[in-house]
Amino acid sequence: MKAEKPSFPLNAWYAAAYDVEVGRKLLARTICKQKVVMFRKTDGHVAVLEDACWHRLLPLSMGSLNGDELTCGYHGLVYNAQGRCTHMPSQQTLNPSACVRSFPVVEKHRFVWIWPGDPAKADPALVPDMHWNDDPAWTGDGKLITVKCDYRLVVDNLMDLTHETFVHGSSIGQRAVAEAPFVATHGDRTATVTRWMENIDAPPFWAGQIEQARGYRGKVDRWQIITFEAPCTVNIDVGVAEAGSGAPPKDGRPGDRSQGVNGYVLNTVTPETDGSCHYFWAFARNYCLGEQRLTHQLREGVAGIFREDECVLEAQQIAIDEHPDHQFYNLNIDAGSMWARRLIDGLVARETSSAPVIPVRRTA
Amino acid sequence: MKAEKPSFPLNAWYAAAYDVEVGRKLLARTICKQKVVMFRKTDGHVAVLEDACWHRLLPLSMGSLNGDELTCGYHGLVYNAQGRCTHMPSQQTLNPSACVRSFPVVEKHRFVWIWPGDPAKADPALVPDMHWNDDPAWTGDGKLITVKCDYRLVVDNLMDLTHETFVHGSSIGQRAVAEAPFVATHGDRTATVTRWMENIDAPPFWAGQIEQARGYRGKVDRWQIITFEAPCTVNIDVGVAEAGSGAPPKDGRPGDRSQGVNGYVLNTVTPETDGSCHYFWAFARNYCLGEQRLTHQLREGVAGIFREDECVLEAQQIAIDEHPDHQFYNLNIDAGSMWARRLIDGLVARETSSAPVIPVRRTA
Amino acid sequence: MKAEKPSFPLNAWYAAAYDVEVGRKLLARTICKQKVVMFRKTDGHVAVLEDACWHRLLPLSMGSLNGDELTCGYHGLVYNAQGRCTHMPSQQTLNPSACVRSFPVVEKHRFVWIWPGDPAKADPALVPDMHWNDDPAWTGDGKLITVKCDYRLVVDNLMDLTHETFVHGSSIGQRAVAEAPFVATHGDRTATVTRWMENIDAPPFWAGQIEQARGYRGKVDRWQIITFEAPCTVNIDVGVAEAGSGAPPKDGRPGDRSQGVNGYVLNTVTPETDGSCHYFWAFARNYCLGEQRLTHQLREGVAGIFREDECVLEAQQIAIDEHPDHQFYNLNIDAGSMWARRLIDGLVARETSSAPVIPVRRTA
Repeated sequence: MKAEKPSFPLNAWYAAAYDVEVGRKLLARTICKQKVVMFRKTDGHVAVLEDACWHRLLPLSMGSLNGDELTCGYHGLVYNAQGRCTHMPSQQTLNPSACVRSFPVVEKHRFVWIWPGDPAKADPALVPDMHWNDDPAWTGDGKLITVKCDYRLVVDNLMDLTHETFVHGSSIGQRAVAEAPFVATHGDRTATVTRWMENIDAPPFWAGQIEQARGYRGKVDRWQIITFEAPCTVNIDVGVAEAGSGAPPKDGRPGDRSQGVNGYVLNTVTPETDGSCHYFWAFARNYCLGEQRLTHQLREGVAGIFREDECVLEAQQIAIDEHPDHQFYNLNIDAGSMWARRLIDGLVARETSSAPVIPVRRTA
Repeated sequence: MKAEKPSFPLNAWYAAAYDVEVGRKLLARTICKQKVVMFRKTDGHVAVLEDACWHRLLPLSMGSLNGDELTCGYHGLVYNAQGRCTHMPSQQTLNPSACVRSFPVVEKHRFVWIWPGDPAKADPALVPDMHWNDDPAWTGDGKLITVKCDYRLVVDNLMDLTHETFVHGSSIGQRAVAEAPFVATHGDRTATVTRWMENIDAPPFWAGQIEQARGYRGKVDRWQIITFEAPCTVNIDVGVAEAGSGAPPKDGRPGDRSQGVNGYVLNTVTPETDGSCHYFWAFARNYCLGEQRLTHQLREGVAGIFREDECVLEAQQIAIDEHPDHQFYNLNIDAGSMWARRLIDGLVARETSSAPVIPVRRTA
Repeated sequence: MKAEKPSFPLNAWYAAAYDVEVGRKLLARTICKQKVVMFRKTDGHVAVLEDACWHRLLPLSMGSLNGDELTCGYHGLVYNAQGRCTHMPSQQTLNPSACVRSFPVVEKHRFVWIWPGDPAKADPALVPDMHWNDDPAWTGDGKLITVKCDYRLVVDNLMDLTHETFVHGSSIGQRAVAEAPFVATHGDRTATVTRWMENIDAPPFWAGQIEQARGYRGKVDRWQIITFEAPCTVNIDVGVAEAGSGAPPKDGRPGDRSQGVNGYVLNTVTPETDGSCHYFWAFARNYCLGEQRLTHQLREGVAGIFREDECVLEAQQIAIDEHPDHQFYNLNIDAGSMWARRLIDGLVARETSSAPVIPVRRTA
């Protein structure tokens, strides 16, 4: 996976931090192989600069924040929030080249997003839709884990939930997930995998949720609707409803989920290096909104599930590194991740060559 | 020692585990740079498969064992004990290429042996003779240590016991070992170093053994007869007898060891990577057979001696890595290891080229 | 900083140990990428040999010292203090090539200096002047720290004390250092940076010293006179005197420092590898000579200051390794380190090419 061609596009918004992580302390992080330092300005907006002093490369995150300016912790060069050097020790004239790179930044849906590519293309409208993360009709919480694998392995993992049966057997996995048919579709920037499992026993996790929220204990219709948005965001509409209560869509119209419980597993995965990534996730629900205890419980429960994935993903990366020329075979279950990979490859190809890119065609 | 040419032949039996290590749990180990997973089938025989799922390379050792079949811990592909995939999630048709490699395996002399090369050549008769390890006329026990050095450094170490004087001075070493003459001979697959030290004081280890077994405290005739079997097995016939009681061979006939104590240091060293190896050893004796306490004491005592070697071997490997082009000089004491190296090189050369190999000639 | 051309000259004296470190035990250390073993002979003089046995490369430092001879800890080869093998196991004839390299060594100013280059050029008169370290008119003590950076980054650090303001703000740093003008001069092997800060408040460290030594609490004249001697020694004449008492030089004549306190920060930095160095330092003073408590306190206080530098230097090295092609800009404050670098480059160039070296010209 030591890619010869880039493994990710630069012209995209990448989650760099949870909103609460960025304040009046300097936060250092590597995003898309670029070391950055983040801080919140006195007006509350976030600034993101290259984390290396123009003069001797010391990380600016080792310096100090005064107002909206950073002072380098070695020789005291001062930078404003745009990255321009405004003071040098023992000299009046500032070298006009003295600046560090600043990055376009947007704060949205509880994440701080940065754009590592061409700033002229940084359109805030392109930030992925993760509105469930701060929509008052939903409640939830999440975490950041840094996983030692190519971010695309996380995307693969999320695009095929068959693995729940084998990796998460004690919580959300069940035989039905590995056996139920699914439908994979895609658009120009998105790919979707839809799986309905009707009239089944709920797995332990969902059995608990629907009983707690609705006092229901019987058979359920279960759904998993996975939506990938290139290059690295995967939102999963999940839930169960009383079996036969009309939750599945019919004749092209949405079903009636009123007898069910619904959650969104929100995931956005930011490359750190070629072999590691920042995996931001949250679980939002539309039931028992006011119950803080449930929010806490769900966050820790999902965190436990994701630790199972982390273990698998890191072992997989090690195996891939040991077999650099391995040709992978795809199974039916890989349909979603194949489309996701193709969309990512398309974005990368558009940035790295002027040669024509084979167009991704829409399929049913 | 980052060898350009292979450092070991593939067509050979290599010890992969002690018999007791392999059971109904999955055991992962790297043998000759190949990651394998081992388990004991319901019929008691051992199966050894490549430890990487055909689909996404996850180590199968992270999965589960059901009957004689392995289930991958990521997407649930199932493999039989021959490595053929027998089940895939969400699909009926199995890709005919879906299998992982299985390895010829023999269980003999308390070790599980695998053959990493051409299965057609895997003749069980070629397993090295280490019968003292499960012969009722002998008793003993051993251990596995994994040492961070080329396996050939362990072979060198065992082929010249001069080092006992300097590395193991408090137990088996004594000036006599470094000073006594020895005879080195060899065959097509074996090399032997014979050293007799007559009428000497026994070193601490042997003084204790002969006193315990035979109540004898005087001068001894001591022997060390080292037999190397290519590529990586070294059995050492060691012991002491009352001085002058006739232990040394005479006129080509074996001596009379009845007034002595005799042990075999059994060693087989399996490459893990180019820079590390699994060192399986045991110490078997033909006296005080029923004394479990002595078996335990000898095993731990010898383990302590081998830790002294481990320290030297790892330091030597580091030094070799730092001097990749170093040309080594050989002393008289290196005669045995020179023959061992030559036999190993011959096996490797026969596998890697069709060019004629310079024949190893028999010498006195 | 993975330099293609050598980062240090070989024909120079390098501090390899503090005098007290070398005794009748074997001391292993890497000096200029060369592993050496040091010991004190029975006559008290220090011997320094290559730390790898001629036979199998085991570090001789793992062996034993008997009289003035080293015995290898593997097969018992014996070497005299000149590195010649004087004994081999099991053989009478010694291979005439059997020796390890020995290094010219001088003990001076409390350091053991070795010369890794051509022994014929090892003139003891070239040992850098650090006499304050054992001159009875001065007292003090020091330490060795091993820092994970190119030794030249330590030289840079010492040649520009502007950084005191930002790195050592709680002890010796103050705005005045970053703002005061300075003068940089150089010779064939030396570079000097002189900074006088007149009529200022003393920083915490010096306020304490002058009060303790002279009972004085008012404004001071402060000086820092940094002298670099190629390739890697930096002695810094530092101190404060009562403001206006005549400490600064006048009309080319030295000032009157009798109303002040004076120290020398003695530094010599020996490359260990391209990315690490042994940083030997001491702080000597010419006041309160008999007070052991003050010596102890100063040594530990300065050690704390140098730990702040260590943190900056290692972060800087990591950043440099990540930007191998980075072109550095120099500020006015870098005048001293630029000269130091140029002198080092000149020494290296003289060793590595016969091409003409651009002469370093003397400037005011």
